[in-house]
Amino acid sequence: MKYFLTLILAVLACLPLAAQESFPAGTRPASTTISMKGWPRIDNENRVYFGISAPEATHVIADICNKKYELQRDEKGFWTGRTDPLVVGEHYYFMEIDGARVSDPGTETIYGCNAMASWIEIPEDPAESAYYTFNPDIPHGQVRECRFWSPSGQKSRRIFVYTPAEYETNLTATYPVLYLQHGMAEDERGWHQQGHLAHILDGQIASGKCVPMIVVMENGECDYGFGAKPGETMDQFGAAFEGILLNETIPYVEKTFRARTNREGRAMAGLSWGGKQTFDIALRHTDRFAWVGAFSGAIFLMPGTKVETLYDGVFANPEQFNAQVHVLFLGMGTEENFGADRLSKMLTEAGIRNVYYSSPGTAHEWLTWRRCLNQFVPLIFR
Amino acid sequence: MKYFLTLILAVLACLPLAAQESFPAGTRPASTTISMKGWPRIDNENRVYFGISAPEATHVIADICNKKYELQRDEKGFWTGRTDPLVVGEHYYFMEIDGARVSDPGTETIYGCNAMASWIEIPEDPAESAYYTFNPDIPHGQVRECRFWSPSGQKSRRIFVYTPAEYETNLTATYPVLYLQHGMAEDERGWHQQGHLAHILDGQIASGKCVPMIVVMENGECDYGFGAKPGETMDQFGAAFEGILLNETIPYVEKTFRARTNREGRAMAGLSWGGKQTFDIALRHTDRFAWVGAFSGAIFLMPGTKVETLYDGVFANPEQFNAQVHVLFLGMGTEENFGADRLSKMLTEAGIRNVYYSSPGTAHEWLTWRRCLNQFVPLIFR
Repeated sequence: MKYFLTLILAVLACLPLAAQESFPAGTRPASTTISMKGWPRIDNENRVYFGISAPEATHVIADICNKKYELQRDEKGFWTGRTDPLVVGEHYYFMEIDGARVSDPGTETIYGCNAMASWIEIPEDPAESAYYTFNPDIPHGQVRECRFWSPSGQKSRRIFVYTPAEYETNLTATYPVLYLQHGMAEDERGWHQQGHLAHILDGQIASGKCVPMIVVMENGECDYGFGAKPGETMDQFGAAFEGILLNETIPYVEKTFRARTNREGRAMAGLSWGGKQTFDIALRHTDRFAWVGAFSGAIFLMPGTKVETLYDGVFANPEQFNAQVHVLFLGMGTEENFGADRLSKMLTEAGIRNVYYSSPGTAHEWLTWRRCLNQFVPLIFR
Repeated sequence: MKYFLTLILAVLACLPLAAQESFPAGTRPASTTISMKGWPRIDNENRVYFGISAPEATHVIADICNKKYELQRDEKGFWTGRTDPLVVGEHYYFMEIDGARVSDPGTETIYGCNAMASWIEIPEDPAESAYYTFNPDIPHGQVRECRFWSPSGQKSRRIFVYTPAEYETNLTATYPVLYLQHGMAEDERGWHQQGHLAHILDGQIASGKCVPMIVVMENGECDYGFGAKPGETMDQFGAAFEGILLNETIPYVEKTFRARTNREGRAMAGLSWGGKQTFDIALRHTDRFAWVGAFSGAIFLMPGTKVETLYDGVFANPEQFNAQVHVLFLGMGTEENFGADRLSKMLTEAGIRNVYYSSPGTAHEWLTWRRCLNQFVPLIFR
């Protein structure tokens, strides 16, 4: 019996307080709630209920969707509170315990806001969310974590690579590759974890709307703040990624995977700052990429900018550009102001063929980018 | 310019406080410190320095290695503190802010202790840690996240699958499969993230000491506490995993990967409760598995237990057992008391051939399990 005791003690040392609190009627745990805990919870009005033990705190706040909610303490020091109905989609949030901004121990964390953040997904109508939800009835690809040595960084780099289901069986085929970038304050995990990329690709490929492709998710070297590296300007922010992608990542991918290795077989896209990086890199290297997308891209052109001077003059000859870049995709949510509509108009006026997608009712957030990806992938590699 | 302003505001809303504090001399960020932050830090004496902003807190504690360290507040509400020299290896830790037990916003989190825990690795001597460290000079396998539908659970299951480097090029080969389980309060991420499994396998395979193999990491349904499911006994804790593994996971793996599908091509091992599950499952199904390992296995036999009655009598005929199970591996650290030494002796006395490995100076922790895996994999599939 003493061995059992050793085991019990070893495990109890690790155990958080069991959630013995009663739960508000009509609520359920969120999809990201850690199974053993009951909090946070959601009700049918899309209100979120938070609960956290903080016996000696004097005030506890949940900070979500740009609003701070004061939680209330019970006699045991367990704090609870309810939000207003929240907009659908994924939200980062933080707890503030006597001024300390931390993640909620009740949830899975995810890299966002330059931190391991708490996150919660307020579900859309199932018909709306089906395209980014696991579908048992179709074949599923895989998301592979790969590491390779970076001579420029003198360290190993981690990338995530989506391979389609048929990659496992169609062993003589080669596949086109989409290089897909995250934005500021997130990293190479974003498209897989926050973006549900695998479900989107699985669905599009299974339906035949999109050709089977490889998707590579790299770290754009812009995940540590807003131009926050000492001595760096905004122009330099993430600029090192160009050399890494072209000289290290792409060669690694094309050596490791059954990838197509010509420009027709390479696309690049990104969200927010990753959209800016995509323009900076792909439009300066149209010898390498034939398909380009920016989702809420941080591409802010000064009034009076001459389109023909941008990106080493890639737009100077519209006919040549339109022949080379088969799809130039711009997308944005209707509730944000990242200028993709103006950019699209400016390019169209300059004779540059482009596709513009507007995501109804969404802001600078993952619902916009999932939809953009879902719109973009059927257009490329055709 | 106003678009730049929008961007700046959007990002600033997401930014944590920049770490402007000065750092103690002779310290460096830990390997798990998030790049933008400077805390936590380590010095050459293996002391850890914590730092966290908690302006209105009255006391802040760092809880690491079974000891609580009170941090000290500066005039701005930033709290810092230093531990004693810590033992090498990976440690979970938590911050307690006025009694609220949370992870440290300065670090990566990882699933352990039934929560997204902070973790820090106190580095061993490079010669000791080389086997679980990325080696630029050898080929690297991949760790694939796969999802499949579980009829018994009516949900998708997530597994991680290591494939060796040559899996990408040796397209006609089939590979043996090791099913490798985590312990209590951790989950299917453990062997990859905490265990550095890919580095261990890459090294062993590259050196030729171990045959190329697939490793499957599943959720053993024992990650939510200590028998904590309502109404569940210890015997039932994680018992549902047997049916899942045999009827769902293995068929999925053998359908999806170029896996060998006979008992000689299947091994099972696990750590702690996963070691107990390995014995429960593999020893009751020696028609399916020919290689078995328990690392600090939670296999606590009552004094006087008759070995020949265990696991449906698998040990009753030692000759037959020894012919069937080619390797029965037991491992444990010298600084823990999980009884693998007694179990090995008991089995040896009953005529059951087994391999016993003792990890010098390590306890019930990942250093023990990395070493056990490193000892185990060269023995199997030969």
